[in-house]
Amino acid sequence: MTTIHRIFNFAAGPAVLPVPVLEQIQRDLLALPGVGISILEISHRSPQFEAILAQAEADIRSLAGIPPNYRILFLQGGASLQFSMVPMNLLSAGETADYIDTGSWADKAIQEARKVGHVNVIGSTKSDNYARLPSSSELKPTPGAAYLHMTSNNTIEGTEWKELPPRGVVGDTPLVSDTSSDIFSRPIDIARHALIYAGAQKNLGPAGVTIVIIRDDMLARSVAKGALLPTMLRYAVHAEHGSLYNTPPVFAVYALGLVVKWLLAQGGLAAIAVVNDRKAAKLYAEIDRTGFYRGTANIGNRSLMNVTFRLPAEELEKAFVKESTAAGFDGLKGHRAVGGMRASIYNAFPEAGIDALVSFMRDFERTHG
Amino acid sequence: MTTIHRIFNFAAGPAVLPVPVLEQIQRDLLALPGVGISILEISHRSPQFEAILAQAEADIRSLAGIPPNYRILFLQGGASLQFSMVPMNLLSAGETADYIDTGSWADKAIQEARKVGHVNVIGSTKSDNYARLPSSSELKPTPGAAYLHMTSNNTIEGTEWKELPPRGVVGDTPLVSDTSSDIFSRPIDIARHALIYAGAQKNLGPAGVTIVIIRDDMLARSVAKGALLPTMLRYAVHAEHGSLYNTPPVFAVYALGLVVKWLLAQGGLAAIAVVNDRKAAKLYAEIDRTGFYRGTANIGNRSLMNVTFRLPAEELEKAFVKESTAAGFDGLKGHRAVGGMRASIYNAFPEAGIDALVSFMRDFERTHG
Repeated sequence: MTTIHRIFNFAAGPAVLPVPVLEQIQRDLLALPGVGISILEISHRSPQFEAILAQAEADIRSLAGIPPNYRILFLQGGASLQFSMVPMNLLSAGETADYIDTGSWADKAIQEARKVGHVNVIGSTKSDNYARLPSSSELKPTPGAAYLHMTSNNTIEGTEWKELPPRGVVGDTPLVSDTSSDIFSRPIDIARHALIYAGAQKNLGPAGVTIVIIRDDMLARSVAKGALLPTMLRYAVHAEHGSLYNTPPVFAVYALGLVVKWLLAQGGLAAIAVVNDRKAAKLYAEIDRTGFYRGTANIGNRSLMNVTFRLPAEELEKAFVKESTAAGFDGLKGHRAVGGMRASIYNAFPEAGIDALVSFMRDFERTHG
Repeated sequence: MTTIHRIFNFAAGPAVLPVPVLEQIQRDLLALPGVGISILEISHRSPQFEAILAQAEADIRSLAGIPPNYRILFLQGGASLQFSMVPMNLLSAGETADYIDTGSWADKAIQEARKVGHVNVIGSTKSDNYARLPSSSELKPTPGAAYLHMTSNNTIEGTEWKELPPRGVVGDTPLVSDTSSDIFSRPIDIARHALIYAGAQKNLGPAGVTIVIIRDDMLARSVAKGALLPTMLRYAVHAEHGSLYNTPPVFAVYALGLVVKWLLAQGGLAAIAVVNDRKAAKLYAEIDRTGFYRGTANIGNRSLMNVTFRLPAEELEKAFVKESTAAGFDGLKGHRAVGGMRASIYNAFPEAGIDALVSFMRDFERTHG
């Protein structure tokens, strides 16, 4: 067998997956062991796939400590479709949905919700180019809001909530969180949430499956909203059919299940959080070391998943992109909304890649600084 | 390398894929050649994936002879989400959409369209348990209908339109066709259609991607319907962004592209139609040979993709399922709506599997007849 050449992939998503997961997928690609049919061909109604789906759900429950009054759904359409499904299922006429505006994706969620019902943006850092998160005192919640929507990690701007907005400020309003870019990167207080959603393609698997964790009372709202919504956009329908109302993205569910098994094997969320802390700390330490590099996010809000930084001049940033690419680092160019660099270092990103990037950054500063 | 044991998979979808496609996916699973990143990890904004997407589109255009005034979109959610997207984008207040009701899936499309606007079912064979298609004289089209929706192949009931409803009957009403279960199994008159959609998981690839072929004037309607629809449900948005408005199902698009390349290598649609004709003819000949087996679909409407048949008694059908499964034939149990057996024999189903099934059927008749 020839050696497979793999490079360090810092892409914001789809993003790097654990090599043992890729190897297992590869090994069984022509036929699942003992089944004689590839995972790419197997009926979603087969007992073998039903077992794969049930195992993925059980492993997610175990990994994140999900209580029995929450359902786990495997859907399609990414977070972008959830931007619409959340208000369509949870927001009724005469009600208000609260949103916290902390980045480009939060803003998209707000735009979609406004098509459905009344939205109150109870805090925004748009005027600061989303470089920070709002403090508790800046949040002005609506009493009796249908739900409060937040974005746990802002992929583009490189900020992340270290703690959920305190109950003392937001009360018992059902909390809905887009966790697409930091799901299962650290322990999560499921019980504080009413609904959690995430596209899989950053921390959980390949693109093509979206996970929704929904509390029973939110499901009841979805039942009540019911009949006039498109069937495919109703949480209640997908829950009733165990994510098998129509053909699910079979392969993506299977791959996600393998990634969750890998996370369990790493020791679970507390263990992976230690690694993620250490990986991010190494990068931020290098960014802060001399002042040559400059982090773009407010220090107290820095993301452990997306590390954004700039160089002293745009010419240097162009050189950094060019030279880092040539050195085998892919995907470091930042989003145009922020500029500069972005290193996305999700769960599966290897620590060796962090060390290699730090070393490259030192060399770059020495030759260009 | 150990021999991979594969069985004959007659599942209705997801369904069997070409072995050379599976082998290529397996070979490159850890890293695309010269890229160093797996297709499961690669950014949808990378030049490499943009090339994969563009190649898939170009190959589909070449395979099916798609004129330049049609766009090809790669979406998520399967035909089930198209049941809603079609009327949401193409049907306005005060207009009527015509539907032909030829099976369980056509009926689902009708139910979703009724949530959006006015629907006229211009022909139905429901009272015949969908065992046949309506004749031209049974169709009563609405003058000036927004569109006419049909289902080219009825997966559950085993019927298939041999020719499109004639212009002399349905006029120039834009024709929308759900081709999920027979797309690219034979030449298709694209120019007669305004919109064609298909979930990939029967003839085109793994589950998780839906192809939509839409004519420019339908896209213009989608633009006009605009602002209040969820962004993810607007054809205009996906067309404007070249199927990259949000993260597409990267792997499923890649696999679909490989299947299309395989179809081209088989000689294209005319060549694959010859094989499909021959495969189905062998099975129907065995069904008709003695009267022990009985086809459930009207002979003139028999599907080349889903061959449905019954045995003289339900006890025999149970025995057939049990013994065929033991003999290495999977997925032959028919849908509960029809009962009996169903052999789904899409493009990639090997002719050797047909011969083996015919041989099994003869043996079964000899021992149980």
